[in-house]
Amino acid sequence: MYDFTPPVANLVNELRKIPGIGSKSAQRIVFHLLKNDKDKALALSEAIRFAVEKTRFCSICNNITESEQCEICTAKGRDNSKICVVEEPFNILSIERTGLYRGMYHVLSGNLSPIKGIGPDELKITSLERRLDSVKVNEVIIATSPTIEGNATAIYIFDLLKKRGIKITRIAMGLPIGADLDYVDSVTIAKSLEGRIEFK
Amino acid sequence: MYDFTPPVANLVNELRKIPGIGSKSAQRIVFHLLKNDKDKALALSEAIRFAVEKTRFCSICNNITESEQCEICTAKGRDNSKICVVEEPFNILSIERTGLYRGMYHVLSGNLSPIKGIGPDELKITSLERRLDSVKVNEVIIATSPTIEGNATAIYIFDLLKKRGIKITRIAMGLPIGADLDYVDSVTIAKSLEGRIEFK
Repeated sequence: MYDFTPPVANLVNELRKIPGIGSKSAQRIVFHLLKNDKDKALALSEAIRFAVEKTRFCSICNNITESEQCEICTAKGRDNSKICVVEEPFNILSIERTGLYRGMYHVLSGNLSPIKGIGPDELKITSLERRLDSVKVNEVIIATSPTIEGNATAIYIFDLLKKRGIKITRIAMGLPIGADLDYVDSVTIAKSLEGRIEFK
Repeated sequence: MYDFTPPVANLVNELRKIPGIGSKSAQRIVFHLLKNDKDKALALSEAIRFAVEKTRFCSICNNITESEQCEICTAKGRDNSKICVVEEPFNILSIERTGLYRGMYHVLSGNLSPIKGIGPDELKITSLERRLDSVKVNEVIIATSPTIEGNATAIYIFDLLKKRGIKITRIAMGLPIGADLDYVDSVTIAKSLEGRIEFK
């Protein structure tokens, strides 16, 4: 039976291990890599190796970094009385881009998900508690996604931390800017009603 | 302004060059690669290098191969009086899986697309003509996709080859197996009517 030549089958197989890449996408990527300039494909191979070898997780907040501690944890002039809890390192960039937040971060590296076998021990929750033990923090802002898993994670962390008497907040859920009320689901509208803010 | 650490920014950038992978997908892939077992990420890096270094295009049909000529072009017992013209190497596997075709292939490496700047010279059409000059072929089966670009390519090849007096066919367009007539678009229904086959 005819099949891909082994180096191709092997690469298709490695690519399929990435979540969100199925057989067809993997085939398209492989063909793209082999069809065009081979130097570009080798550049990708090198970029993966370089990123894997050069990066690690910040010993304080679990952000991706090249040093022992990340750029934000070691920055001067940031407000270390606030910790914003996010799911993944890339969420930090999204929040930094708003330019509104000057506190610290804590990356959980995922969300609670019984289906995927991810419990509290799989997330960086213990290290969050240790940070709260050692540094004076006034506010923990939970910025997990408003999904079932993100909500479960937010509630779990709230329950865990509430005895500490720290202010615990969660970023607001409501209508995204530019949304047409007609097309927004009723759960989002309910959340935006609950979270309504008084005109001043 | 905070940004990804350079090895990460570099990898995100390399991944975004792949068609169908945008910024968000690239970020998710990078996080997946760095978060989990680093050996698996290095395995992907190696798989890309290995595939790039070990493979080339068959000098006869442009299939991906590890040798000068591919497994199908050098196979014994195949019918070399038929050439099936496909867009990409992976299409060969799809056709081989049917078990119905024992002829040869010719990979165009794409479709005509004025928008993407792909003209006849960018496709392996000259090498198809050279094959027809040197080997006695009875039938050319055009198996490009039934898309605008695939149709344009099929018509271009038909026009180019018709003076040779060879039988030129195109694989049938019609209802996919399991389709519900109610949900099939009218162009497909029109094609399946035009291509209707007599009960015998």
